Amino acid sequence: MLNYRDELDKMPSYDGVEKNYRIKVNANECTLSLPPLVEERVMNRLAHVAFNRYPNEEYYSLVEQIAKNFSVDDEQIILGGGSSEIIEKVFHAFGGAGKKVVFPQPSFSMYKIYAKAAESEGIPFDLDENFNLDVDAFIKKIREVNANLAVVCNPNNPTGNVLSPAQVEKIAASIDCAFLLDEAYVEFYGRSAVNLVAKYPNLLVARTFSKAYGLAGARVGYMIAQREVTRMVNKTFMPYHLNSLSLVTADIVYQMRDEFVPRLHMIVAERKRMAERLQKLSGVEIFPSETNFILFRTTRAAELKDYLETLDIGIRYFSPNAFGLKNCLRLSIGTRMENDEVFSAIKNFLEAV
Amino acid sequence: MLNYRDELDKMPSYDGVEKNYRIKVNANECTLSLPPLVEERVMNRLAHVAFNRYPNEEYYSLVEQIAKNFSVDDEQIILGGGSSEIIEKVFHAFGGAGKKVVFPQPSFSMYKIYAKAAESEGIPFDLDENFNLDVDAFIKKIREVNANLAVVCNPNNPTGNVLSPAQVEKIAASIDCAFLLDEAYVEFYGRSAVNLVAKYPNLLVARTFSKAYGLAGARVGYMIAQREVTRMVNKTFMPYHLNSLSLVTADIVYQMRDEFVPRLHMIVAERKRMAERLQKLSGVEIFPSETNFILFRTTRAAELKDYLETLDIGIRYFSPNAFGLKNCLRLSIGTRMENDEVFSAIKNFLEAV
Repeated sequence: MLNYRDELDKMPSYDGVEKNYRIKVNANECTLSLPPLVEERVMNRLAHVAFNRYPNEEYYSLVEQIAKNFSVDDEQIILGGGSSEIIEKVFHAFGGAGKKVVFPQPSFSMYKIYAKAAESEGIPFDLDENFNLDVDAFIKKIREVNANLAVVCNPNNPTGNVLSPAQVEKIAASIDCAFLLDEAYVEFYGRSAVNLVAKYPNLLVARTFSKAYGLAGARVGYMIAQREVTRMVNKTFMPYHLNSLSLVTADIVYQMRDEFVPRLHMIVAERKRMAERLQKLSGVEIFPSETNFILFRTTRAAELKDYLETLDIGIRYFSPNAFGLKNCLRLSIGTRMENDEVFSAIKNFLEAV
Repeated sequence: MLNYRDELDKMPSYDGVEKNYRIKVNANECTLSLPPLVEERVMNRLAHVAFNRYPNEEYYSLVEQIAKNFSVDDEQIILGGGSSEIIEKVFHAFGGAGKKVVFPQPSFSMYKIYAKAAESEGIPFDLDENFNLDVDAFIKKIREVNANLAVVCNPNNPTGNVLSPAQVEKIAASIDCAFLLDEAYVEFYGRSAVNLVAKYPNLLVARTFSKAYGLAGARVGYMIAQREVTRMVNKTFMPYHLNSLSLVTADIVYQMRDEFVPRLHMIVAERKRMAERLQKLSGVEIFPSETNFILFRTTRAAELKDYLETLDIGIRYFSPNAFGLKNCLRLSIGTRMENDEVFSAIKNFLEAV
């Protein structure tokens, strides 16, 4: 009876409570809560939040810190509700009827949804069987379809592999349209392309507090681009889109980001250890990762997922229709103890044939 | 050089730090922070937030409480980042090229921006010189232009006056399109139309924690409508659009909402006292209010605003172009002490001629 926006009925809904597994390695979250020193300062800061006032300088305080760290102007930073909201708004800003967005597949599954939400045409570009991106062919495709926006997740989710800074630069330099680089996992890789923003007016880099900084619950991310770009993308955000509690939390976390270095090293070391052990299991193919997760393939992926679930271990399984991900599972890196338990469970399952 | 979404360049931007006045009565905020008992429980709850996990059951816990309070199904509730985000998304859901949105003016100034953001045509309908809405003429207008969405703020911001439940029902019953009722200030009025949702499938009611519950900083609002409506509007929200910190804060506040009753009474009593005193000043015209603010007109509004600013008192001034609001000022109700100081300042200014 009511007349909804065109195509809205074709959009998916995201309701429903997710299961809280005893060992939760399905969502690429940081398995550790805040470092104790950081948590103490966050709680002290939260105790002084003006709950009753609209957010105000809390936003700019965080912007200033981030800008200073990257040696860019404050005006080059936009904060959003996770990099999710940044990506959603960038798709909107460069979207609309007839506009095309090109992104590799498999990659972050939301890109095609954001394209649809922005009423644009999402055009996936296939990675090869090792999930590598043929950069020249990707550039050719972007030009061929006259895309308005190209998106690359680097390191790539859910595959874990990376483009080198030179490859990223080649894309930025070779296309005329906007180029959004989603660096959600870059802290585990260490080679960000933020320094290229000064050189390429079409480059937008999205970052998040959800992964390396373990703030998935607070929903804070940011974007770095040239001023003319942020000036336009800012117009897609309504006033007070971020809340004071998340802003001051991220502010303290960013001030104390050195406290997160040891755990970054731990996660990377654990990822290597897990990859080496999984590699040795017969019937398992591991894909190289520069993130906080590992993608692997095994012939009985669905059964393995079900088996882990009986042990209250949640792992990411991909539907058989997901391009290139048949029989793949994705495993976030937990604590050493969690990893050992997950590994033993996988080993037991595979050897019990 | 980059090719942005059509019309994006015509959208305004909302950056810039707002001044923190010593007495801040310009933004219809609650002047009081959380009641001490509530604050203690909020802080205890925040100490147990899983910062590192994506928001999950925190959303549904609050939904259940709200649904229970209004005796509706959980599926009839959507939570958003303030009622702002609810309104933005409703405009989006019923918007698009060629779609029309009718709303009274003067009213919440963001309606025309949300209409533009949704790429629809905003059609303001003039209130009379006392800011009353001619309901029959409004209905006629909605039908005449074949509107897709009608929006009413009740009580109305910035005028403070109200429609009766019977008037609200008349609109809902007389139009075929979606009807969004923005009840941001309804707790100060006491006559919500949520009970009409069961009867009218076109009625959507937006509510907020920002005003009566003093949580403007947390950005939490909600919408109540029939299931078919929430099912569709839900599709405009991306996953994890709300953060855990704000959700658990609003959850505790809602559990303890009885603690807010005394301050609601205080604010209403203070509003009456202020209105009576202002009324007696010569050259001041007060408009009746059922909210936490008062709109008044005086010939030297701009000068008065400037004078108050010299005392570090922030009041809401409207640009001379704002329809119907020439020489109007809006004043939020503060504590008794704040109100006394603001009143004295206004009196001094007006009598110093």
